Amino acid sequence: MNQITQTLSTETNGPGLYEITRPVISWCKEQAIQDGLLTLFIQHTSASLTIQENADPDVRHDLQDFFSSIAPQNGTYRHSAEGPDDMPAHIKSALTQTQLTIPFTLGRLALGTWQGIYVFEHRLQRQNRRVVMHLMGD
Amino acid sequence: MNQITQTLSTETNGPGLYEITRPVISWCKEQAIQDGLLTLFIQHTSASLTIQENADPDVRHDLQDFFSSIAPQNGTYRHSAEGPDDMPAHIKSALTQTQLTIPFTLGRLALGTWQGIYVFEHRLQRQNRRVVMHLMGD
Amino acid sequence: MNQITQTLSTETNGPGLYEITRPVISWCKEQAIQDGLLTLFIQHTSASLTIQENADPDVRHDLQDFFSSIAPQNGTYRHSAEGPDDMPAHIKSALTQTQLTIPFTLGRLALGTWQGIYVFEHRLQRQNRRVVMHLMGD
Repeated sequence: MNQITQTLSTETNGPGLYEITRPVISWCKEQAIQDGLLTLFIQHTSASLTIQENADPDVRHDLQDFFSSIAPQNGTYRHSAEGPDDMPAHIKSALTQTQLTIPFTLGRLALGTWQGIYVFEHRLQRQNRRVVMHLMGD
Repeated sequence: MNQITQTLSTETNGPGLYEITRPVISWCKEQAIQDGLLTLFIQHTSASLTIQENADPDVRHDLQDFFSSIAPQNGTYRHSAEGPDDMPAHIKSALTQTQLTIPFTLGRLALGTWQGIYVFEHRLQRQNRRVVMHLMGD
Repeated sequence: MNQITQTLSTETNGPGLYEITRPVISWCKEQAIQDGLLTLFIQHTSASLTIQENADPDVRHDLQDFFSSIAPQNGTYRHSAEGPDDMPAHIKSALTQTQLTIPFTLGRLALGTWQGIYVFEHRLQRQNRRVVMHLMGD
């Protein structure tokens, strides 16, 4: 059994869902592994990971609106030193995923037809987000 | 180290939690693996996975009510072409899990006494949901 | 490839986030594994796992407040036999994680600088929570 780890950097420019499906799949296919397990781990607590529909972009906008309404910037938070968008960002991260693990079989990631992998950015300002990719298998 | 992948199909008939603990455990026990890691991955974005109490069925009904109140069908969504239950389904999926990974030790899945594994259906109409099961170990 | 499983017990005393980063890292370093995958699995449905900022403690208090406001104890629930804090605890668990998987590379867990691993206790009374740690690798 083999394993490989690499970090994927994603530039974000404001809140929203940034698709990383293609670079993730490309990286998996470059490795000498046909069957195994892919783990994605985002090294931040104000951005997160989610698997969502990759068809209608309205789904992503509605998702973003939902999370903004449930954890609004004008809420009352103790933690405010890093700006009004920081505490809501931590809440949105807690409500979604820091890590995703996906089976990789016969050289294909086990995503459904309409599933895409996204970095969910919750901060207002431009960020560089690191997602650790770990593939283990044969 | 060995690994096996198989898809579990689950018929659902309206919103709610459908337990899959037994077929998952049965499948694990059929494999020539005693110790390893089980990953469950649902190939949909309008149904999800969750581990919840398997004792009082009221817990599942209360959970369903909670998620319906937080992401109501009569909310205002851009994405409406697939019916009023579709965007709430995506939100509920984002708030729960697409994937679960569970240690498998000495032929036993590491579930606690009161834990059951559920497909959480968020759509109104009858569906056939696919959960990819991946077991890796010795 | 090797694998090791052990249970980490955590005493909790009321709702809140209890950091387990240090004992988890210590345990990983004691094993004869340099590269692999760590899986944490909490065997309960009224406490959960989350990765959050480990710097400003206000973040943890704001998180706790958020989850208490979204799933209040004075809500209307069918399931009430185990006390007014039990059903909210199940909801908060469903909204966060039962399981976390983290790459372990060159003897280091792939946590970001500001990330800590927490048991998120949702019950009022003193509890003893079990987290199964599973490390697989070389």
